This record gives sequence, structure tokens and C-alpha cells, in this order.
Amino acid sequence: MKKRLLLLGGGGHCRSCIDTIEAQDAYEICGIVQPKNDCIHELLDYPVVGCDDDLLELLNETPTAIITVGQIKTPDIRIRLFNLLKRYKAELPVIKSPFSYCSRRAVVGEGTILLHGSLVNSNAEIGANCIINSMALVEHDVKIANHCHIATGARVNGGVSIGQGSFLGSGCVIREGVRIGERAVIAAGEIVLQDIPTRSVVRSRT
Amino acid sequence: MKKRLLLLGGGGHCRSCIDTIEAQDAYEICGIVQPKNDCIHELLDYPVVGCDDDLLELLNETPTAIITVGQIKTPDIRIRLFNLLKRYKAELPVIKSPFSYCSRRAVVGEGTILLHGSLVNSNAEIGANCIINSMALVEHDVKIANHCHIATGARVNGGVSIGQGSFLGSGCVIREGVRIGERAVIAAGEIVLQDIPTRSVVRSRT
Amino acid sequence: MKKRLLLLGGGGHCRSCIDTIEAQDAYEICGIVQPKNDCIHELLDYPVVGCDDDLLELLNETPTAIITVGQIKTPDIRIRLFNLLKRYKAELPVIKSPFSYCSRRAVVGEGTILLHGSLVNSNAEIGANCIINSMALVEHDVKIANHCHIATGARVNGGVSIGQGSFLGSGCVIREGVRIGERAVIAAGEIVLQDIPTRSVVRSRT
Repeated sequence: MKKRLLLLGGGGHCRSCIDTIEAQDAYEICGIVQPKNDCIHELLDYPVVGCDDDLLELLNETPTAIITVGQIKTPDIRIRLFNLLKRYKAELPVIKSPFSYCSRRAVVGEGTILLHGSLVNSNAEIGANCIINSMALVEHDVKIANHCHIATGARVNGGVSIGQGSFLGSGCVIREGVRIGERAVIAAGEIVLQDIPTRSVVRSRT
Repeated sequence: MKKRLLLLGGGGHCRSCIDTIEAQDAYEICGIVQPKNDCIHELLDYPVVGCDDDLLELLNETPTAIITVGQIKTPDIRIRLFNLLKRYKAELPVIKSPFSYCSRRAVVGEGTILLHGSLVNSNAEIGANCIINSMALVEHDVKIANHCHIATGARVNGGVSIGQGSFLGSGCVIREGVRIGERAVIAAGEIVLQDIPTRSVVRSRT
Repeated sequence: MKKRLLLLGGGGHCRSCIDTIEAQDAYEICGIVQPKNDCIHELLDYPVVGCDDDLLELLNETPTAIITVGQIKTPDIRIRLFNLLKRYKAELPVIKSPFSYCSRRAVVGEGTILLHGSLVNSNAEIGANCIINSMALVEHDVKIANHCHIATGARVNGGVSIGQGSFLGSGCVIREGVRIGERAVIAAGEIVLQDIPTRSVVRSRT
């Protein structure tokens, strides 16, 4: 029997997550939790079952949940929801698309999702509550802390380390061995050859 | 029994198409139609069976065809052939590489080919006669009109819309939600962060 | 029974190679050969069985070997090891990840490895002792000479030719038909639209 799963956040990123969860075929999505009563009643055939205020009650019935809110500018919403789920003793599974590849020598934290076409290589360590988005590459020996979003088609080369709450934009390339601090934002398409301090924004185009 | 299939256009892109069609193993390629009598007699073991002037006669025998001419600067040749095939009541199948991924929630129009390693995510809508080339990414909720070529390794992020006859070059990145008009040309490697009007050329390198 | 295999070079790239060799499940890795006695005794559970000076003796027992040293600035170490292996009559297999795609119409030389997520399309020809790294794309009709490294996520478009000993950095894009000379170095993320002479360095960022 499939395990019942709650999704927290019903935007565009959630649609990608649903596709991955359905392809994995291990969970039954029993509904979506929205931040507020926002008049959306369903998403890709799944019902909106409540808002954040109903979360404790919903988890009584379905104690397994994953956060499906996207993350571009700030990780704060995803961190707040993660802490709420931990306080409520929810179980946060790791979701891996059957169309991704994750080395058996890699470690992936709770609540992290590997979307279609992503690749996590040997000896990589990925923290909790991360998004490894479609076609993103996490190479050998990379360390990614909690609450990071590695966006579509980003390439994180061997031995890179990334501090918690950071965002790596679509199609960026991080040179091997580079260290990126916490809550850094790397814009789409950037080529990062040097270490990036905490809370930096790397954006060469406007 | 495999369905017989005609290919229109025998250049380099056709070689990629043949590889995908052979891998899919649903069609028997019965020959290639060249624009003129150009002295090429075969391509990857398949015979050239005629030129565009012979098309109506060839379709009598093999009513299923796909356009395998490439598209870089202009979609005009592919549009002309598409209109010809429709006038002649040909059937244009959708070709999906078994080494691509296409969400069951995506819609793909007739005569469109998804080459190896491409990925079409949830809720995407792709029109007719498009090329989704090797390792191209079409994310959730993207809308692509007819006669577009998304080149190798391009990344089209969530919710982007692309007007008909547009070309997105190899390795380009289109930011989520951007609108690209008709017959736009995005050069290889461009990072597109803003809407692009119809018939624009985006090229920052020469 | 699996064939025994020696690995020459135990750095980070070797960890990616091990992941690919294990996934392919055709070889039993019987040990790693290090350049000198460098006090590393194992790598991902495999023993270091000797240094380069022991190579002839080690090959007597295990005549099949592959070079797992990385290649960034210069191909010289990999070329020296390759020549040594050839002089000692070693057998150099082609290693293809089961999570890569290689067209049956492509030709790949001895000692070359296709890592996870890489794609080699129709009619491509790749020489000996090359690295086609994770998620690298080698399109139809590309010719790559011996001792090249196509780094992670690089996209080499149709009909490109690359001279021996060249390095194409992570995420670079090479326009279709471009000719790259011998021992060229293309930095990460470069977009190459024109021919590149032998021994050139293409680097627009510092």
C-alpha cells in the first residue's frame, strides 16, 4: 500500500513535484496545504485540503509531508514550514525521481527532492529540505547544506561546498572546489570561478 | 508490425532523428525525401527515395511522414513542408525518444520530435512541428507554439511562453515566466531574463 | 565472472569513475595505482595496490586497466600513462555508464569513459583515452581526437571537430561545425562560435 503524503504549497514548483512523486509511485498524494484560504481548490486533480493553520490537524491523519513551495529569492518560507513540520513531529521523506540518478555513495537529507533528470554523483552530501531541480548536476564530493535550491540545469562541480539557504540559478556553473557561503544567491547562467561569501548576490546581468 | 515512415530532409539533424526513431522502435523508416535531386543516394543506410516533387506519390504508398530538416535561422522550410504534408493529408506522428522524458500531463502536437535526453515537464504544451533537441529542458507550465526549435541543452523554465516559429539556441536559459514572441531568434548560450518581442534577435556575442 | 580492472589515479575524478564502473557492473575493481607512495591507502573501499613503478608487475596479474586521473590544464599525465599502458600491452576497455546514452552508430576508442548522464549521438567518433564527463553532450557527426576531456554539462554541437589533448570546460557550448585545434583549453561556461586554433586558451572570465 502506498504511503499517504501531504504537499505544502501549491504553485508551479508543486506541479513539478507532483510529476516526480507520481513517477516514483511510492506515495499517494492526499492533498495540498496552501498558505492561506486563497480560493484555489485543486491542483492537477488533487484537492486543497486546508491552509497552514490546519496543519497540525492534517498531520494527525497524514503524518508524512513534503514542502512543495518554490524558492527563488529567499529560503525563509521553506525554513519556516520545515521547522513547523519538525515541531509537529511530521515525517519528511526523501523523494527521488526514477528519472534522476543518485549514487548509492551519496547522502541525501530528509525532505529533499531530486526532480527529473537530476544527477547526484559519488560521495556527495545534500542536507535536508533542498530542491535539486530538473537536470541539475551535483558532482562527486559536493557538500550542500540544508534549505538550498539548485535550480534547473545548474552544474555544481566536484568538491564544491554550499552553505545553508543558498540559491543557485538555472544553468549556472560552479567551478570545482569553490566554496559558497550561506544564503547566497547566484543568478541564472552565472559562471562562478571563485569563492562566494555568505549573503552575497552574484548577478552580472539585469 | 511497424508503421512505415517517410523522412523529409536528409542533413545532420536527420541523423539525430534517425537515431531517435530507431531507438523508439515503433516505425520502419522507408526512405528519405530530399528537396531536389542532389546526388545523395542514402543516409545512414536508408535510401533517398525521391525529391519534394515526388511527395504526393510517395505519400500514397507511405502516408506517415515527419520533417527532419533542421531549423536555425528561419522556420520557413519546415513550415512550407508542414503545410504541404497537411494539404496532402499525411499523418504526422509525435516521436519521443525512449531516452527522453515527457510528463503524462504534457501535451505535444503532431510532427514534433523529442530527441534523446530531452525533458518535458508537467503541464507543458508544445505545438506541432517542433524540435525539442538533445538534452533540452521544457519545464512545468511552458507553452511553445508551432514550428519552434528548442536547441540542444537549452533550458526553458517554468511558465515561459514562446511564439510560433521561434528558435532557442544551444545552452540558452530562459527565466521563468518570460514571454518570447513569434519568430524570435535566441543565440546559443544567451541568458534571457526579460520578455522578447516578435521577430527579435537576441545575440550578445559575434 | 567479472573482469578484473586496475584504476590509474585516485583523486576526485576517480570517485566518479568508480561510481560509473560499479553501475555498469561488468568489472571488478581490484585496486588503485597512485603516482607515488602518497600515504593514501584506500578510496571508496578499494585498496591502493601500488604506485606507477609497480605497474608492469600489477598488469601481469590484472592486464586490464583504465586511467582515472582527471584532466584540466594539461593532458600530459594521461598521455604518459596511456603510452605506458600501451607499451606494457595492457587492455584498455571502453566504460559506458548505464545512465549514459551512446548511439550504436557512434564509435568510441579504447580507454574512454562515458560518465553518468552523458550523451553521444549518431555518427560521432570519439578517440582513445577521453573523458566524456557527467551530462556532457556530444552531438551527431562530432569528431573528438584522443586524450580529450569534455567536462560536465558541456554541449558539443553537430559536426564539431576537436583536436587531440583538448579540454572543454564545464557548461561550455560549441556551435555546430566549429573546429577546435589540438591541446586547446576552453574555460567553463564559454560560448564558442568560431574556430579555435591549436594550443589556444579561450577564457573570457578571470
